[in-house]
Amino acid sequence: MEYTVKLLSKALLAPINLLLVSLLLSAYAVANPSHQSPNVIIIFADDMGYGDIGAYGHPTIRSPNLDQMAAEGIKWTNFYAASSVCTPSRAGLLTGRLPVRSGMAHDQIRVLFPTSTGGLPTTEITIAKALKEKDYRTALVGKWHLGHLPGFQPLDHGFDEYFGIPYSNDHDLKKELSYIQTITHAKDGDFNVPLMQNRSIIERPANQNTITKRYTQEAVSFIKKNSNQPFFLYLAHSMPHVPLFASDQFRGSSDRGLYGDVIEEIDWSVGQVLSTLSEQGISENTLVVFTSDNGPWLIMGAHGGSAGLLKSGKGTSYEGGMREPAIFWWPEKIKPAVAHNTASTLDLFPTIMSIAGIDMPSDRSYDGYDLSPTMFEQKSNERKNIFYYHGDKIFAVRQGDWKVHFKTVANIYTKEQKILTHTPPQVFNLLVDPSERFDVGAVNPAIIASAAKLIEQHQLSVKPVENQLIKITALPTIK
Amino acid sequence: MEYTVKLLSKALLAPINLLLVSLLLSAYAVANPSHQSPNVIIIFADDMGYGDIGAYGHPTIRSPNLDQMAAEGIKWTNFYAASSVCTPSRAGLLTGRLPVRSGMAHDQIRVLFPTSTGGLPTTEITIAKALKEKDYRTALVGKWHLGHLPGFQPLDHGFDEYFGIPYSNDHDLKKELSYIQTITHAKDGDFNVPLMQNRSIIERPANQNTITKRYTQEAVSFIKKNSNQPFFLYLAHSMPHVPLFASDQFRGSSDRGLYGDVIEEIDWSVGQVLSTLSEQGISENTLVVFTSDNGPWLIMGAHGGSAGLLKSGKGTSYEGGMREPAIFWWPEKIKPAVAHNTASTLDLFPTIMSIAGIDMPSDRSYDGYDLSPTMFEQKSNERKNIFYYHGDKIFAVRQGDWKVHFKTVANIYTKEQKILTHTPPQVFNLLVDPSERFDVGAVNPAIIASAAKLIEQHQLSVKPVENQLIKITALPTIK
Repeated sequence: MEYTVKLLSKALLAPINLLLVSLLLSAYAVANPSHQSPNVIIIFADDMGYGDIGAYGHPTIRSPNLDQMAAEGIKWTNFYAASSVCTPSRAGLLTGRLPVRSGMAHDQIRVLFPTSTGGLPTTEITIAKALKEKDYRTALVGKWHLGHLPGFQPLDHGFDEYFGIPYSNDHDLKKELSYIQTITHAKDGDFNVPLMQNRSIIERPANQNTITKRYTQEAVSFIKKNSNQPFFLYLAHSMPHVPLFASDQFRGSSDRGLYGDVIEEIDWSVGQVLSTLSEQGISENTLVVFTSDNGPWLIMGAHGGSAGLLKSGKGTSYEGGMREPAIFWWPEKIKPAVAHNTASTLDLFPTIMSIAGIDMPSDRSYDGYDLSPTMFEQKSNERKNIFYYHGDKIFAVRQGDWKVHFKTVANIYTKEQKILTHTPPQVFNLLVDPSERFDVGAVNPAIIASAAKLIEQHQLSVKPVENQLIKITALPTIK
Repeated sequence: MEYTVKLLSKALLAPINLLLVSLLLSAYAVANPSHQSPNVIIIFADDMGYGDIGAYGHPTIRSPNLDQMAAEGIKWTNFYAASSVCTPSRAGLLTGRLPVRSGMAHDQIRVLFPTSTGGLPTTEITIAKALKEKDYRTALVGKWHLGHLPGFQPLDHGFDEYFGIPYSNDHDLKKELSYIQTITHAKDGDFNVPLMQNRSIIERPANQNTITKRYTQEAVSFIKKNSNQPFFLYLAHSMPHVPLFASDQFRGSSDRGLYGDVIEEIDWSVGQVLSTLSEQGISENTLVVFTSDNGPWLIMGAHGGSAGLLKSGKGTSYEGGMREPAIFWWPEKIKPAVAHNTASTLDLFPTIMSIAGIDMPSDRSYDGYDLSPTMFEQKSNERKNIFYYHGDKIFAVRQGDWKVHFKTVANIYTKEQKILTHTPPQVFNLLVDPSERFDVGAVNPAIIASAAKLIEQHQLSVKPVENQLIKITALPTIK
């Protein structure tokens, strides 16, 4: 049977053969029980913008592997992260629940820091933990940022293995200079960030120059080790979060400067993962998802990315803050398509449970929807709304085509950001006006009323929990 | 032999087979003399922005035919129109010479109007006229805008056939209302623009609702009629220039509003042209170029397009004014690629002469370069510079990665635009900073000096000629 699968894998590159191949494979899928526990890989970039790869319109950065993945799989154009900043976004991704439900969102303290003592409570169920029910082997390679103290670590949340940094790569700054200047002119070693394996620190400071390369080696090794059993790999790159680092092979190789070098190394890494799946003969039994945690960090100048034609970036409730490149790839199962319907990283939990044949936990509220209809039947899924949280407050809501901004963040290119309240709220039609240029709030009171009601209903389902981000001490808690 | 060619045509869709196919085809190409006079089709959109199709990052507009053309051919990311407005851009495209050389550029009167008496002088040599040396059959289907009076018409410039409108689709406005309001709320018939066939007006006002559809029918018919001989088809859509019109089949069909309907109809049209070539078995002997005359008309609100992550739009010397989507498609001859090197519509004349085996005229200055190295050998071509003319004045110049702005247009979203002079000039690295956000002029005097010298040298080659755009009378000259 292995020969047949490999042959089909090559044929995948010819779209003209896809229909025939699909028909053959449907029969195959039903006959082969291994398809009931498909492998899942989530590749998560850090601060990559909507416009930062070729398939999403960047004119300079070369991303042949991601472009090919997009051509062969589903390229999403309305796919959202769960938050516009790191910690809550990752909490949402792994739990399928808005970060406010797990205490991982706060207005003023936006992410976990080395001085934090909190983290994702173990009462939460991550994708990794849920997949253990079907005996998946699970690994996190890369950035965690959901609590670095024992009790909150990856191995406390269903991951069998962990190799990576516990929080952001700009933490543990050694010298106190102007923040932006320091991190955009950083040398490796300026940040005392630890590299961890399982529960131990194995290198400090982590050598960030080689970190993308080493994550890739770890990921490839994990796939090879587990090619005969179901696995879940969460490959959460620390890049392109500032400070930027690339390995020798990529440093200076791109036309886009250091930011481009970093993206091109991530693109190379994606290619390594996909080709390893092919070599192992398991690509037809593996869903690979590529996306990012939030939009580009615009205050970092040329060290930050680009949201393309979308407005603004990281830390804001404009589209550039939360709408991300997103590619789903699963040879033979997912047909090449561009999906314009709305989806979110919050949908990954229920989608993965669905394809793995695991019932959703019934004791809590979820904020995601199974994306199987879009993946396998070219249909819209159930998602109609997006809530744009700024910390634990809702700043905006998308209902179908319409987005209503009640509050926005101003001065996005500087550190002196401030909050604006809009009376009447701003209203944009995101399909006609994806750049949020033409406010039609004054003439659309019904849309505003409907959005306000939706938020009110939603908030009834959000129960108060202990906030994890405010738990901070004076000194770094990881030694 | 026909069977072989068709078989190879299908194989083209499988990139994995490309090397083998190329080897087979090289032998075939040498053996078959018809390859010495390949057909050429230029599909030219009107005011389409860099970000307005899926392959260039638009999240809403569906462009499956252009996306596939981009995947199978060369997708350019640094390809420029010859000007940021219509008339001079078209003069540059067809002659391979900067519009200032043919008298088709002026600061204040930017394009030809119905009251104009001038046009492209017949001393100029268009692509159509040059190809007559090799007995090409030539047609313009669509918008001309290079002079509507006898002596300046398409049939005076080497075209055997003409079907289209002589100038912009917003000319001959019947009622005098607020300009922008009128044309963004236009009904078909509000504009008395004539539809011409050869030298005669056959319909007035031209029914613009059906114009893209009828252009497509004419183009398909021309290809079918001439499938046994070399031909040149210049398919210059009048859309998406405001006022926007789409046929019944497309009106209301897109998620992007009327602008999206219009782009999706053009995308459909591209699909019709390409599938006709396949049906006729001549796609392997036809170069198809798709691009646009200038950037999006931003003052038109949601009726204007988007330049994606590029700055500004039509009428400006920012990247959004002149950098365009550009796709070259030629099955078996051009391999799938993304070209990041710089090119221009000014390069089409020498490129087409090269592939048709016609010597360049030696009695005049040209501003283009043969793009064959990029098309056939994946190499950069000779072009290093772009001159950004605003009318007959140079506002900016690109030298390699660097762009120097001496003057720019301010207030681009309004009709009250004004000219700013920059001291020191603004300098942007277009590869690192494609959105022209980070001015490094203050610290790069050598780049500014080099740009100034380049302009000085260039201007020595520009001889004064009679200006065609200032030749205007009181009343429309076409009856």
